[in-house]
Amino acid sequence: MALPPYQQLEQEFRHLHAIRSAASMLRWDSAVMMPRGSADLRAEQLAALETQSHALLTAPRVSRLLERAEANWSGLEPWQRANLKEMRRERDHAIATPYNLISRLAKATARAEIRWEEARQQSDFSLFAPHLAEVVALLRDKAAFLGQALGLDPYDALLDEFSPGLTTAEIDAVFRVLGQRLPDLIHEVIELQARRPPLEIRGKFAPAKQRTLAIELMRAIGFPFERGRLDESQHPFTGGVPGDTRVTARFSANDPLTGLMGVLHETGHAMYDVGLPEAWRGQPVGRDRGMAMQESQSLLLEMVICRNRPFLQYLQPRLESAFGVSGPEWSVENLYRLLIRTRRSLIRVDADEVTYPVHIMLRYELEQELLQGELRIPELPEAWSVRLGDRLGVRPSNDAEGCLQDVHWAVGSFGYFPSYAIGAVIAGQLYETLRAEHPALDADIAAGRFGGLFEWLRQNVHALGASIGTSELIKNATGRPLSAAAWLRYVEAKYLEE
Amino acid sequence: MALPPYQQLEQEFRHLHAIRSAASMLRWDSAVMMPRGSADLRAEQLAALETQSHALLTAPRVSRLLERAEANWSGLEPWQRANLKEMRRERDHAIATPYNLISRLAKATARAEIRWEEARQQSDFSLFAPHLAEVVALLRDKAAFLGQALGLDPYDALLDEFSPGLTTAEIDAVFRVLGQRLPDLIHEVIELQARRPPLEIRGKFAPAKQRTLAIELMRAIGFPFERGRLDESQHPFTGGVPGDTRVTARFSANDPLTGLMGVLHETGHAMYDVGLPEAWRGQPVGRDRGMAMQESQSLLLEMVICRNRPFLQYLQPRLESAFGVSGPEWSVENLYRLLIRTRRSLIRVDADEVTYPVHIMLRYELEQELLQGELRIPELPEAWSVRLGDRLGVRPSNDAEGCLQDVHWAVGSFGYFPSYAIGAVIAGQLYETLRAEHPALDADIAAGRFGGLFEWLRQNVHALGASIGTSELIKNATGRPLSAAAWLRYVEAKYLEE
Repeated sequence: MALPPYQQLEQEFRHLHAIRSAASMLRWDSAVMMPRGSADLRAEQLAALETQSHALLTAPRVSRLLERAEANWSGLEPWQRANLKEMRRERDHAIATPYNLISRLAKATARAEIRWEEARQQSDFSLFAPHLAEVVALLRDKAAFLGQALGLDPYDALLDEFSPGLTTAEIDAVFRVLGQRLPDLIHEVIELQARRPPLEIRGKFAPAKQRTLAIELMRAIGFPFERGRLDESQHPFTGGVPGDTRVTARFSANDPLTGLMGVLHETGHAMYDVGLPEAWRGQPVGRDRGMAMQESQSLLLEMVICRNRPFLQYLQPRLESAFGVSGPEWSVENLYRLLIRTRRSLIRVDADEVTYPVHIMLRYELEQELLQGELRIPELPEAWSVRLGDRLGVRPSNDAEGCLQDVHWAVGSFGYFPSYAIGAVIAGQLYETLRAEHPALDADIAAGRFGGLFEWLRQNVHALGASIGTSELIKNATGRPLSAAAWLRYVEAKYLEE
Repeated sequence: MALPPYQQLEQEFRHLHAIRSAASMLRWDSAVMMPRGSADLRAEQLAALETQSHALLTAPRVSRLLERAEANWSGLEPWQRANLKEMRRERDHAIATPYNLISRLAKATARAEIRWEEARQQSDFSLFAPHLAEVVALLRDKAAFLGQALGLDPYDALLDEFSPGLTTAEIDAVFRVLGQRLPDLIHEVIELQARRPPLEIRGKFAPAKQRTLAIELMRAIGFPFERGRLDESQHPFTGGVPGDTRVTARFSANDPLTGLMGVLHETGHAMYDVGLPEAWRGQPVGRDRGMAMQESQSLLLEMVICRNRPFLQYLQPRLESAFGVSGPEWSVENLYRLLIRTRRSLIRVDADEVTYPVHIMLRYELEQELLQGELRIPELPEAWSVRLGDRLGVRPSNDAEGCLQDVHWAVGSFGYFPSYAIGAVIAGQLYETLRAEHPALDADIAAGRFGGLFEWLRQNVHALGASIGTSELIKNATGRPLSAAAWLRYVEAKYLEE
């Protein structure tokens, strides 16, 4: 006897998940293990898995099963309904765009990424411009197809791929508030910090020792090394799959803190994956709720919890013993000042917590104008420079430190950038609620007890998987819709402290 | 306009190859990188890729294309014909066995492997016996199906999966000769070696230094580290795919030679993969010619070339400088005696070059009797013990060092064992021809020049891929059909030297 349609769909999606998981492991290998000369071979392997996943998801059989399962909606349990909705969502996304367009976009972005790398090295936007133009044109078509299929504005449809349920309206509301307050706030913070500059840390700090300390911290936080690893790569990331989580770091011998903060950031992502509901593993509903929520978890751990005094009380003696150091520059207070230092800077990935949203708002605005054709490709470097100057008071002296600094547009990730800043805002909002419900949080963190923090996050975020949308998840966890208010209160309290 | 059928098949098989390559990389990861707790997840990923590969290979579309391409045989180039034959061979193997049986076998062997591990640890065959019985029964069915489809005897059909074209008749002829000569030869060698025992090497040899030396040797041999890696794992193996070759080693601090010899063995496999024709990559004809040829390459490098005086002249100063050692036990002559030491021993993987075939002949005989029902499962331990005693003069004192020592039967690899001994015999035969054609071989190896050796192997073995059968390949390379004669001449000259 055949299984009911919904159960057949579970089998199909479990199989699809296994194929995608294989691809995810290979992407980790590409960045961490693969010898350089094997890149073309790997691209073929990944393309084959991608083709296979797409074929599985768009098979007529899946469409028929979805219809039959939806017809029996009332016979399903609540989590199964949520799962069925996510199955539908994935499949609608997959069939919305003609395969021909997907395939052209894959080729165009592969070329564009190579040219972007060259252009950045030579700091010459004109080398990249025609490739960006091609990617933008194809993405405009994709956004139109997706929007039509999903009943969304084109840019909202792109957003929906990265952070399901998040809309331009919500983002605009948050960014309007931030845009009003940040210029003054940045000015005040920088003035204040200038009155008590931190002592610099100098010396050599063996990467092997940094790695040992990083592992100790990850263990204390609760990262399960029996189902995960820490390795090194050019750019830190969290890869693998839930159940086999692969975190990477980059350690520099001149700087004992940046690599460690990167590990803590990635551990925030990793703990989200670790906390996803095991019972739903392999099903669409068992996945994380997209990039904005992911970023909220990494920023909550790195920026809010770890770049803060209670954590530094825990960390400080461990730094001293790991590196055999001591002195005033290693005091909790000095470490704190170093880790919250605010600067008007040009590079997004090096930016501090306060100025970071400015970098994102710039990109958010520019990428919409590019897609809508309001900004022409050749005008991008100048527009970037002028607007960054207006808002942050610094202007890039060349394209490499301007509009060529990020890979996202080259690889076609339009609609991705806002998730970084919205993630920060979500982190601020979650933190306010968490503190109210856990008055002992600071004492716990100072003592290296992370259990209460992650219990709360698991219950309010991780364990929900993808069962509800981004906005609903925030409202359920904090009692309020997404807003910049809590983040601003958090940042003002932290950075304007006298 | 659609591509001609043969070209469509090339596309299908390239896609299939990419999916299988992904699985191969994940198997490497399982053994080298994967955290222990992620094994179940990995099993799901591999099963999904296996299902997908099987579906691609057995699709009706492939059958139709094969027939249409075969109808246009005369329009194909010679290598395309060889490729088409291999495509047909793969597909006939894949559809010969009902999927239901494949799936039962996969589950039975997964269970049996776990129970084999437990039984071996407790040295109690009775724990494993019912699982072995199940595997044997299923394999008997599989062999019957395969044999019928391929027009072969059932056991020959199993052999054909591992070493295409190799037959029981050929193996029997080789093993008959070896069986007649080896008992006396082993006796003579052991007597002779007792008259000049080597000095033992004692001390601690840091695995990191062994690794550095291993990499130096691999580079000298020609292993391309820009398209391959050396890592460590519990059991050394060569994995990955041609174009991304992953060699593993196991180093012990008490023993500076065994780990290194393991690396040289695996490098022999790796160089075969490296030498496969790039123009045929991703096609069935571009693969190696099976396990016996693979083993001939690893044994030729490890046993014949490296466990020999010219290589030791090259290696000896490098050992001294890697470990900061010197003394009579590090002389070329003493190292040579250590590396060719012959003993009557119980464990196949630790056996020396001379006694090794005895271990294989025992398994070859027993596995055929098990499949044919001539030997009952409960009788296996006793049969093993008695026959090993008769032929090698030693008897296991328990099951762990007897019939439970190898994993092969638990995982259903019946027909695999002979490839080890036939590989040795092929290596001996290739070596005789190679020496005749390259009088400077010893001088080259002593000077660390491996180019001539691999040029010959590439031309006569590697570059042929799977374009001809095992037996034909041997005859083409050496001018004679497979026979034990050359190997016996080589072994007698080496081991009976006064």
